[in-house]
This record gives sequence, C-alpha cells and structure tokens, in this order.
Amino acid sequence: MTEAEQFLDVARRAKDAAAELAPLPRSVKDAALRVLADALVERSAEIVAANAEDVARARENGTSAAMIDRLRLDEDRIAAIADAVRHVAGLPDPVGEVVRGSVLPNGLELRQIRVPLGVVGIIYEGRPNVTVDAAALCLKSGNVALLRGSSSAYSSNTALVEIMRDALRGTGVPAEAVQLVPGTSRESVQHLMKARGLVDVLIPRGGASLINSVVENSVVPVIETGVGVCHVYVDAEADLDMALSILLNSKTQRCSVCNAAETLLVHRDAAPGFLPRALAALAEAGVTVHGDKRVAEYSADVVPATEEDWATEYLSLDIAAAVVDGLEDAVAHIRRYGSGHTDAIITRSQPAARRFVSLVDSAAVVVNASTRFTDGGEFGFGAEIGISTQKLHARGPMGLPELTSTKYVVTGDGHIRA
Amino acid sequence: MTEAEQFLDVARRAKDAAAELAPLPRSVKDAALRVLADALVERSAEIVAANAEDVARARENGTSAAMIDRLRLDEDRIAAIADAVRHVAGLPDPVGEVVRGSVLPNGLELRQIRVPLGVVGIIYEGRPNVTVDAAALCLKSGNVALLRGSSSAYSSNTALVEIMRDALRGTGVPAEAVQLVPGTSRESVQHLMKARGLVDVLIPRGGASLINSVVENSVVPVIETGVGVCHVYVDAEADLDMALSILLNSKTQRCSVCNAAETLLVHRDAAPGFLPRALAALAEAGVTVHGDKRVAEYSADVVPATEEDWATEYLSLDIAAAVVDGLEDAVAHIRRYGSGHTDAIITRSQPAARRFVSLVDSAAVVVNASTRFTDGGEFGFGAEIGISTQKLHARGPMGLPELTSTKYVVTGDGHIRA
Repeated sequence: MTEAEQFLDVARRAKDAAAELAPLPRSVKDAALRVLADALVERSAEIVAANAEDVARARENGTSAAMIDRLRLDEDRIAAIADAVRHVAGLPDPVGEVVRGSVLPNGLELRQIRVPLGVVGIIYEGRPNVTVDAAALCLKSGNVALLRGSSSAYSSNTALVEIMRDALRGTGVPAEAVQLVPGTSRESVQHLMKARGLVDVLIPRGGASLINSVVENSVVPVIETGVGVCHVYVDAEADLDMALSILLNSKTQRCSVCNAAETLLVHRDAAPGFLPRALAALAEAGVTVHGDKRVAEYSADVVPATEEDWATEYLSLDIAAAVVDGLEDAVAHIRRYGSGHTDAIITRSQPAARRFVSLVDSAAVVVNASTRFTDGGEFGFGAEIGISTQKLHARGPMGLPELTSTKYVVTGDGHIRA
Repeated sequence: MTEAEQFLDVARRAKDAAAELAPLPRSVKDAALRVLADALVERSAEIVAANAEDVARARENGTSAAMIDRLRLDEDRIAAIADAVRHVAGLPDPVGEVVRGSVLPNGLELRQIRVPLGVVGIIYEGRPNVTVDAAALCLKSGNVALLRGSSSAYSSNTALVEIMRDALRGTGVPAEAVQLVPGTSRESVQHLMKARGLVDVLIPRGGASLINSVVENSVVPVIETGVGVCHVYVDAEADLDMALSILLNSKTQRCSVCNAAETLLVHRDAAPGFLPRALAALAEAGVTVHGDKRVAEYSADVVPATEEDWATEYLSLDIAAAVVDGLEDAVAHIRRYGSGHTDAIITRSQPAARRFVSLVDSAAVVVNASTRFTDGGEFGFGAEIGISTQKLHARGPMGLPELTSTKYVVTGDGHIRA
C-alpha cells in the first residue's frame, strides 16, 4: 500500500470506530481510561526505550537542549502522564448532556443533546505527552483520536499508541479509537487535511507557521489554537503596585507559553509614575524591552521597537512596550496587532474596565489579573485540548464540552406539519 | 480600482463597522431594524422596478417559471419581507448573554458571554428576500452582513442594499453594517473565500454544488448548510396509520425544501402491511418511487433504484425506497447515504426509538413525527439563517445565538498566578 492508501485505510477504520464509540456509556469509557493509564505505567520501560531512539536522533540533528527536554520521557514523566489520564476518567462526561429542551406549542418534545464530534485529527509538535493527553480527552468525549505528531517523536508516539491500543482490547472501547497517521512525511499531513467526510475536525497545536499552514490547506474544518500576542494595558487610573505585579507575572512567570504577555501598553498619564519602576523590574527579571520612543525616554536599555515587534509572539524574555494616549488607542493597538487570545487592563476605574471589556475582541479579556490565567485548568475545566483563538465553535480554553457537537432529538406521537 | 481592490475596500470597511456595531445596545439595533423595514415599504416602487430588470433578464435567458417566481418581488412580497424584519427586531438579543459564569477557588470571577462573530459573509442564490433576511439577522446579532447573492438578482439586491444603507444613516448603526460584494463575476466569490482576517465566517445557502465549492475553496471558516437527504424509517413495530401520515407529510407537504424526505426505509416485517398502502398513497400524490427489488414486489410502478438514488436530494416528487432487515441496517443505510440533516423513525417500541436516536448521527433525529419540523421557525427560534449540516459551531437550524461567538471575561483584584 502507498502511504495515501494506508492513510485512507486508517481514516476509514477511524470513522467506523467513531460510530461504535459514540453511544458507549461513561462507565465503559472511564474504565478503559484507567486500564490505559495502568498499561502506560506497566510498560514504561518500552516507552523509555523508544523515546531514547528519538532523543538520540534529535542529538545527532543538533536539536536544542530545550527541545530535547520537551521530547524526553522518563518513568516519572510517564507516571505523571498516566495520572493525567486517570484525572480525565474522573471528569464529567459531556456526551448526552441536554443543552436545551422544551415542549413546542404543538406538543412536540425538543431536546438538544451533546454528541461526540466523531473523528478528531490532532496535528502537534515534539511533545509525546500530547499523544496520550489528546487520546484520553478524545476517548472521554466519545471521539476517535487520529494523531499526527512530529516526526522527531515518531518512535515514542508509535510505542505510546501501540500500548494504548493494546490496553483498550477487551475494555469495550474499540482499539481503533486511538490511531496514528501512518508515515512521517509532509504528505501524511496533507492526507489528513484532505480527508473531508472521514475526519470531522482538525486541531493543530503548535507554532504559528504550523497553524497557518493547516488553516490554509485543510478542507476539513479546523479549530485554530494557541498563538498568543497578549497585551497588558496599564490604564491612567491603575493601581501601579498591582500593575507591576501583574505585568511581571504575565511576562515572566512562564514566558514560553501562549498566555504570557508580549506587549505592554501604558496610558500616557500613568507612564511617568509606572515606567521607571516597570523598566527597572523587567531589567532585573532579565526581560529585554522593545519600546517606542516614549518608552525609551525612561531607560537607555530600551531596544527600539520595529513594526514587527508589535505583532510578535516572543515566547521569550522579551516584551514590546508603547505609551498610548488613552484607552481607545490601547484598544486600537490590540485590535490591530493582537492575536485575539488574552488581553488585560489594569485599572481602578469601573467605566474604563467596562469599556475595555466591551471593545476588546479577544477570547479572554482580563480585568486586574494576570494574562496567565487563560487556561483550561485555571478556569476549572479539568483538562484542556488547546486554546482556540478563532470565533467559530469554541473560543478560549477548550475542555471536554468543546470536543462535542450537538443533535436535536424531536419526539412526537404522529405529528405532521400543517 | 480592480474588482479585487474594490472587494478589499468593502471588506476592510466591513471589519471596521463590525467593531462599531458589536457594542451597540439592543435598543439601537431594534430601532434601526424598524426604520429599515419602513424604508423598504416606502421605497417598494424602486425595488419592484429594479426587480423587473432581473426578471426581464431571466426571461431572456430562458429561466424556468419556478426560478422566476423565486426571483420576483411585488408590493405584497416586499411588505412580507419588511414584516419579517420587524419580527426580528422583536426577538431577544443574543449578544451579552452570560453562557456560564462562576467564581474560581482563588476568587477570580469568570464569565463566558456571547459576542457577535464580526463579519458574516453570506453566499446565496436567486432569492432576493434572503438579502434582507440575512442583513436583518446579522444586524440584530451585532454582525456585519457581507452579501453575495446570485448575479441573476443583482439589480434587486443592489436596490435593496442601497435602501437598507440609506435607512441606517442616522440610526446609530453604521450603514457599512450591510454591504454587497462588488461585481457579479465568479472571482467576486473567490475574493470572499480568501478574505481570512477580514471575514469571520462564510455561510453558503443553496444547492450542493455551491456549498461544496465554498467548503473546498474557502480559507475563511465555513458553516455548511442545507443539503438534506432525509430518511423516514418505518420500524417493525410502527403504527402503520401514523407511518403513512408521516411519510406523506415528510415527502409531499413541500417537496422542494431540504427537510423533505428523500428515502423511505421499511423494516421487512412491516413491509407486507405497509408497502401496498404506502405505494398506492404515494402514487395518488404523484410521487415516483425509486425502489429496490423488495419494494418493487409490491407495485409495478416502482422504478428500479440505482446506487445514485440512495444519495440523491431529489427536491421533487420522487422518493427512494428500500426494505431493510432491521433497525441496524436502516441506521447503516442512513450513515452511508444520508447527509446528516434529519432522519425519522416511526415506531411504538421504546427500545427501538432509543436505539435509533443513539445511533443516527444527524442534526435532527425524529421519533414519530414528520421530517418537515426541522426548521428554526418550527423549533421556536423565531428566525433562521440556515440549517447547518456540519458538526462544528452549529448543527441543525441556526437562529440568532448561532450567529454569535463567546468571550471570557476574567475579573480579579490583582490576581497573579503562582
């Protein structure tokens, strides 16, 4: 079989498995997840061995230490992955939830209920833990996971998927509920993006170039995730101690993630009181500030910001910074350069907070708190498959309900339309 | 300006207008809709004159009488269109609705609220009433409508949009909230499908070829609507009088619409009692039956069904018909050939009804009622922008809430992440 034929075979089996998986009750799915978690721990030596192949290959290719660390699995990390699976087993099952229901004037009973999406394709980068996380979240929500990880983690992913599939046999959940897209070529991603009718949704997780490529080439519906050019706006009426604490937390608490702040906007009236302290504190924390001229007035260390800086997701100890003439200018800046992920205002003014919330069109708008809270775990969703930055279907952190669709059930006793 | 430049100009103005429109309160939007409705009535002579050009052109081109009837506007039809706009003004505003809310363990307040999608592109065929319906639904839900109707209705649509835009001036709603895609060429649809970042969603309304073309070529997210290969399954334990009444209503009450039945499936145990009566009644109603061999045993008038018949949306007085060996076979047939729109079971058996509802993966699953009820009006939504047959974002009849996205509002008093 060619790789294309292999893919079609896998996708068809995925679609058939989706029909089997959808009506399974929660008890069967939860028990299967627990069996799967145990199997990962029991067979962790196999996983570590397969992972060592990926790590060795990465070293040969001169991959950075940070990337290798993301790739690496050991017994402790596998135990943590298995615990995350057990945690998913304990979450409520979204399937079957009645979203709305009523009796129509003619007596017809109408219910809108949550159902699985079907086959969910996940395209992701070199973190093998995503293989298990995504499979567990899909299984719990009654979806088949069709996984396409990075070629750099192919040995690890192959071992993980094989162990999960072995574990599912005999649980009542079809082993085909977890599948790896065959092959590691670029074409294997293409197959997934063209599989309309077999794959119900694609969720790309990774950097901007991966996500853009999927959005532009896929005929399967896509949920865009993750790119975060997040702003902290310090209003004229901000509590400056609070602003400083939130700025530092948003930028430095973990700078490599999508909900970290990338741009600081300061109202001109707050600038003289805030920027000297903020620039000193950012320098102290090792942050390079890419500022406009009005920011540069306060420190010789400020690197002049280019047009590109305003739209950059640094994911590093860098921040762009500008002074703005008012809240409307801050909003205009965010609308122009932001990615619609998370934007925060620091203010003591109720009208300013209300106006910012109303005008900023992002997945999360934050008042007097760190941007770092935009997260499925922090929001109390129990788990997260990604953070959507698009407006269709799901926006912001996506938990289990976001992995479902709905259907209407209409029940009558012979009703016909007049 | 080239047509492409004209399009970009229109789309950019649409995006700017979306930012203005989104925060407007309901009272402003409702008042604007009523002004708009009055203007359509006051200026109906202009609309009729523009429509006469389209009708004359259609006649020259040899367009069918049915299509010309869809295209034609007169004073009465315009009055009905204006009334529909007033009705939309009276519906609840979905924008601002709190979908969920809680206080997190750390005291952060979390609210998920409905917000407009932004710029909604509608691609549709030769029914000029859609121009006004779609504009009104978009405006009510805080969205800018970017309309691309059929070239056959271009004069009518131009007049309608001009009148609506004139009416909006002075209401507080920007006139740019209603826009027509410039030009009537095929390229003008392409521009719309490539306008990622300017247009938030595309909703194609029309036949299967239009919808497929948009799904395959658009980089803007699409909501698929409308193709309905709907099934009526008569179970072994059906009340046969009820089954006959529902079958006739589903097929013949209005055969040209997406929720009309296109295929009859009969359990083999019900066939001897049901098919003779059903075939006679269908013949009486002028319906041609395209049946398999087991159906053909009951009447010489049955046309042999081809493989293609099972997947055909006739939209005419034709029906495909097959005898199946059981509920599972009916479900397998529906999964294989259906379009995921509406499928009905007629049965007195509670387990059969429950199993059918669980296994059939369609936007609407109906028990003991006509397929014709899948409709925003019938479901009590007050209005309908289309019927989604996809699983992402919206499924089934789409009312005003389906024209919205959500955002999270997170409010703290200096919260930072530990």
